Amino acid sequence: MNIGIIGLGLIGGSIGLGLRKLNFVDKFIGTDSNEENALHAIKLGIVDEIIPLQDLIMQSSVIILSIPVDGIEKILPSILNEIGKDSVILDTGSTKYDICNKVSSHPKRSRFVATHPIAGIENSGPIYANSDLFYKKNCIICDSELSAPDAMSIATKIYSIMAMRMIYMTSKEHDLYIAYISHLPHVISFALARTVLKKFKNEEKIFNNMMGSGLDSTTRLAKSKPETWLPIFISNRENMIQAIDFYIDHLEVFRNYLINKKFHDIDKYMKKANDIKDKKYV
Amino acid sequence: MNIGIIGLGLIGGSIGLGLRKLNFVDKFIGTDSNEENALHAIKLGIVDEIIPLQDLIMQSSVIILSIPVDGIEKILPSILNEIGKDSVILDTGSTKYDICNKVSSHPKRSRFVATHPIAGIENSGPIYANSDLFYKKNCIICDSELSAPDAMSIATKIYSIMAMRMIYMTSKEHDLYIAYISHLPHVISFALARTVLKKFKNEEKIFNNMMGSGLDSTTRLAKSKPETWLPIFISNRENMIQAIDFYIDHLEVFRNYLINKKFHDIDKYMKKANDIKDKKYV
Repeated sequence: MNIGIIGLGLIGGSIGLGLRKLNFVDKFIGTDSNEENALHAIKLGIVDEIIPLQDLIMQSSVIILSIPVDGIEKILPSILNEIGKDSVILDTGSTKYDICNKVSSHPKRSRFVATHPIAGIENSGPIYANSDLFYKKNCIICDSELSAPDAMSIATKIYSIMAMRMIYMTSKEHDLYIAYISHLPHVISFALARTVLKKFKNEEKIFNNMMGSGLDSTTRLAKSKPETWLPIFISNRENMIQAIDFYIDHLEVFRNYLINKKFHDIDKYMKKANDIKDKKYV
Repeated sequence: MNIGIIGLGLIGGSIGLGLRKLNFVDKFIGTDSNEENALHAIKLGIVDEIIPLQDLIMQSSVIILSIPVDGIEKILPSILNEIGKDSVILDTGSTKYDICNKVSSHPKRSRFVATHPIAGIENSGPIYANSDLFYKKNCIICDSELSAPDAMSIATKIYSIMAMRMIYMTSKEHDLYIAYISHLPHVISFALARTVLKKFKNEEKIFNNMMGSGLDSTTRLAKSKPETWLPIFISNRENMIQAIDFYIDHLEVFRNYLINKKFHDIDKYMKKANDIKDKKYV
């Protein structure tokens, strides 16, 4: 059997490298609309062959769809139309509700497994791909009751081989929770980058001289690709608005304590925030 | 000559370890109101001896004041009263204006050098101290024209031995800029931690399962000690309010684009934020 990867960026590339251990795969084949990515993917051993999308769909028993979420939504129905009855397709998008909704009444819905392997870095492209990206991280599988048992079994095998832990929830729950846990931190980081870049527009030297590790870590996500993130924000728009508003409320509580010199309340606020120490990211 | 370190936490501890190469020092002596810190500092070789504050002031040619900024403001004038005419005292506080202001007309002002070595981690205490904390980082020296040339020379020697790069500005400029570059990211992070902890109060398991590296890096600063940060926020209150408001403005721009479906503007917003990539943190 062949595994076909559509989208050979950081995620698709890391899956390609991570799955090399699978001994039942004949060939890894791939496609990417970006020619440079495709070339890198061959050079880096992510896939054995680059072939056109239509051929990949025909020749793959398992298809991994690792492109931006708007792209997934767009091509998933037509891929489902074309794949054989035993083939499996899984996507890796960071939003799940719109994607699942798009194919909810597709006759081959059960061949699709909606997944979100939670891993990533601010850098994109196959040159940053690595076989350990997903090591011991969590993979959210959504609406799993709509996928066929054999399709589920292949999907979990694929993620297990990369040592991921499977978590199950509905696509609706996924999008709400991930709005807070992943999408909101990205917005916060983009906004912080814009704030300091604007503030120091004419003081570039001072900015470079004063930058410390604190700003570095809080603006790390602001380096993320708009091409990936705009479709995520669009797809998860309503949850995002709710999350941003909830966050601004918390920020304003702090601000108002400061304005009203309620320093004891600021102390309590920080002490409660310190509880984040107990949340270990594996 | 002896070097005396008042406050043997992360910063004071790392300075103690970093200065071991100085060959003209007879003894490193230290004091800390926290007995456990003092014990650790001896065990870890940060100082050779723990002695009471008064004795430390008498016996040190160079005093390093590395305690929270409210503490610095409080004891700096009396230490200046007591030190010999050739002694030097430098502080490491994260705000500089109030501290400098407090001793601006002190007859021995010139023996004081106001410094802010820009380095730190979210963990505190001497057990996290390391001799490389300041390696190739920047040290801001404020209002240097008010310090005597020989005091300046000792201060720069101390930071140079740890491979720090010296940057000069007024204490007023320092506090304004650092509000954006360091203090604002801390507030943002505290507020994000509070937001997600509140949102997932009854969904702890889901939170742990979905946490990724994005939330991990944006909430890193929320682990910082209120004991250190409350005095900083109080001391830099006006600049902080300005910085938080400026940040909320940027966040609201993003939010309004999302509400009004101005997706092209979100794309531009993120592209501009991406410029933060060019800002390298050494």
